[in-house]
Amino acid sequence: MSSHTDSRFAADVYGARLERAVELMRAAHLDALLITPGPDLRYLIGSAAESFERLTCLVIPADGATPSVVIPKLELASLEGSAAGELGLQVLDWVDGTNPYALVKSALHVGSRVAVADVMPALHLLPLAESFTGLPVSATPVLRELRMIKDPAEVDALRRAGAAIDRVHARMGEFLQVGRTEAEVGRDIEAAIVAEGHTEAAFVIVGSGPHGADPHHGVSERRIEAGDVVVVDIGGPVEPGYYSDSTRTYVLGEPDPEIAARFAELERAQAAAVAAVRPGITAAAVDDAARNPLTEAGFGPAFVHRTGHGIGLSVHEEPYIVAGNDLVLQPGMAFSVEPGIYFRGEWGARIEDIVIVTDEGGESLNKRPHGLTVL
Amino acid sequence: MSSHTDSRFAADVYGARLERAVELMRAAHLDALLITPGPDLRYLIGSAAESFERLTCLVIPADGATPSVVIPKLELASLEGSAAGELGLQVLDWVDGTNPYALVKSALHVGSRVAVADVMPALHLLPLAESFTGLPVSATPVLRELRMIKDPAEVDALRRAGAAIDRVHARMGEFLQVGRTEAEVGRDIEAAIVAEGHTEAAFVIVGSGPHGADPHHGVSERRIEAGDVVVVDIGGPVEPGYYSDSTRTYVLGEPDPEIAARFAELERAQAAAVAAVRPGITAAAVDDAARNPLTEAGFGPAFVHRTGHGIGLSVHEEPYIVAGNDLVLQPGMAFSVEPGIYFRGEWGARIEDIVIVTDEGGESLNKRPHGLTVL
Repeated sequence: MSSHTDSRFAADVYGARLERAVELMRAAHLDALLITPGPDLRYLIGSAAESFERLTCLVIPADGATPSVVIPKLELASLEGSAAGELGLQVLDWVDGTNPYALVKSALHVGSRVAVADVMPALHLLPLAESFTGLPVSATPVLRELRMIKDPAEVDALRRAGAAIDRVHARMGEFLQVGRTEAEVGRDIEAAIVAEGHTEAAFVIVGSGPHGADPHHGVSERRIEAGDVVVVDIGGPVEPGYYSDSTRTYVLGEPDPEIAARFAELERAQAAAVAAVRPGITAAAVDDAARNPLTEAGFGPAFVHRTGHGIGLSVHEEPYIVAGNDLVLQPGMAFSVEPGIYFRGEWGARIEDIVIVTDEGGESLNKRPHGLTVL
Repeated sequence: MSSHTDSRFAADVYGARLERAVELMRAAHLDALLITPGPDLRYLIGSAAESFERLTCLVIPADGATPSVVIPKLELASLEGSAAGELGLQVLDWVDGTNPYALVKSALHVGSRVAVADVMPALHLLPLAESFTGLPVSATPVLRELRMIKDPAEVDALRRAGAAIDRVHARMGEFLQVGRTEAEVGRDIEAAIVAEGHTEAAFVIVGSGPHGADPHHGVSERRIEAGDVVVVDIGGPVEPGYYSDSTRTYVLGEPDPEIAARFAELERAQAAAVAAVRPGITAAAVDDAARNPLTEAGFGPAFVHRTGHGIGLSVHEEPYIVAGNDLVLQPGMAFSVEPGIYFRGEWGARIEDIVIVTDEGGESLNKRPHGLTVL
């Protein structure tokens, strides 16, 4: 897309982020950050560039020199929508047949302790590592400090994303009907995700009946049957690139009492975990708050995954809400709270909200009813 | 998608590929290949798994031991559609909180000279590199020998992809009309790409008027005007994962004679490059065959990119048809031949076919007329 309306924040937002990245990099005794296309690049300069086999790389030196963008000449237009121009970044373009890794090295006048974006593929990382002495390190320990704490504009984007996906769940009765296949339902949901304000549908899970017991099921040709419990986990990005992600569980007709009773335990556990969110507790404590009541109800083994993941410019990012993560929550963090129970070959259920840590507690961005919704 | 109809070839195809990969790895004095989700994984075991932050990794030891798949427990279902079961691969599943990199190491009983897939992200490559002594190398020099030469089933898939995208170009008059925006046209083309047999629309370029001068333009809110030259470059995968990629250039109404004359030079150059394809010549010679006539006509500086790229399970893969590439063409290679001329601020044009190297010459998989098509 070359249309950039709303596709980034004002340039000064990125200028401040770059300054802060330099401070954090110095504190970590790094000489440079090397950032290839992906969420870190979008975070730092507002560029949604995509590039695989030809190197595009933001080079941020720790010595305070102007950052550079190494970019293939024929992808220069992808920079136009970013803040690179307003920020006065140096542009180092290259054409097929020249060596872009040498260009990265030439953009640095200091040592060789470089950190790279987690998304950088081996295709580029291996030749870059050869140019510098020693294996690079991950840039995430530096950038997580920045990306984990959402500023007000980011929180606003996540709120818009949450409201947009809520509107899709509100229409589920139009899509989810006995006799339709999961794939048919999924196609309607994808269209609704876009119609309700996302730039694309990033993922659609319609896990009906036994398929609901696979947390990472997508869609299939299975036809929805009367009485099916159906897990619907959906999301996508809204401009400028922030993701929604919300799960609700539906049932086609009145549920079996045993299913309703088990679901009620899940609903209590999810609510307890959302209620536990506040600054000062650990990510692990939120996982505990979801897991303990399920374990006490005898469903510990049925809850096969962590409680949640951070969200922002990536669907999955830090902080991860998982046992053993001693990270202390701070205002501005955003993550999913999504416990589930899975009974292989039978059915499954999951409830997922995105929650923002506020000064006093947590704010759920997804307002649709959390119960087992009868359609 | 958990529906796997047609999503892979028979298991023995993958068994043979794994055996050949072991032979080539030994010849390259490597101890193991480590393959994360992406086209190499799909090529080797027929798995279309997607995974980012949790490690999924095929481990192929050079010592002939059974390959292993390291995979998160909650993504085990993604293996069901692959050939892993029929091939008897060892499955090493892991849960959040355990160390998957140690699991990779445990799957190998030999040394430490490992090669990794080009798509492996730094997120996994850096901890794996720490587990092994020394920086890994790229697996591509080993796998390119396999992936570059398409077998008959792969050629058939590429032919189906070519026919499917030809059907979309044949319908361009329905979509491309004066007064519509590039984005509106693009949405219709995306729907047609799926309707004509692709599993998704992977890319859609509608470069109208001055936007045609940007080879990597996507779509925009610009409205198509009478007289516009429009570059339409589109493609997507057909099962089991092979891509189409074809460009045609259209004009809305009778073209200006100067534009028609320049386009005729491009058409001659593209035809000359397709005609040049045969076993025994170099990739660079095909680039020359497209570039020389354009240079002689005075459009050398307007042809700003290489002539083409290999295609298969990736949209862009080896062989690259570029100056300096001395790779000798062999039967079964598949690549694009797509010269273009670009006049910044004015207009651009490109013609692209996928060509397969045959025993005698080259076979173009895209049959739509190559001229400037008047709509």
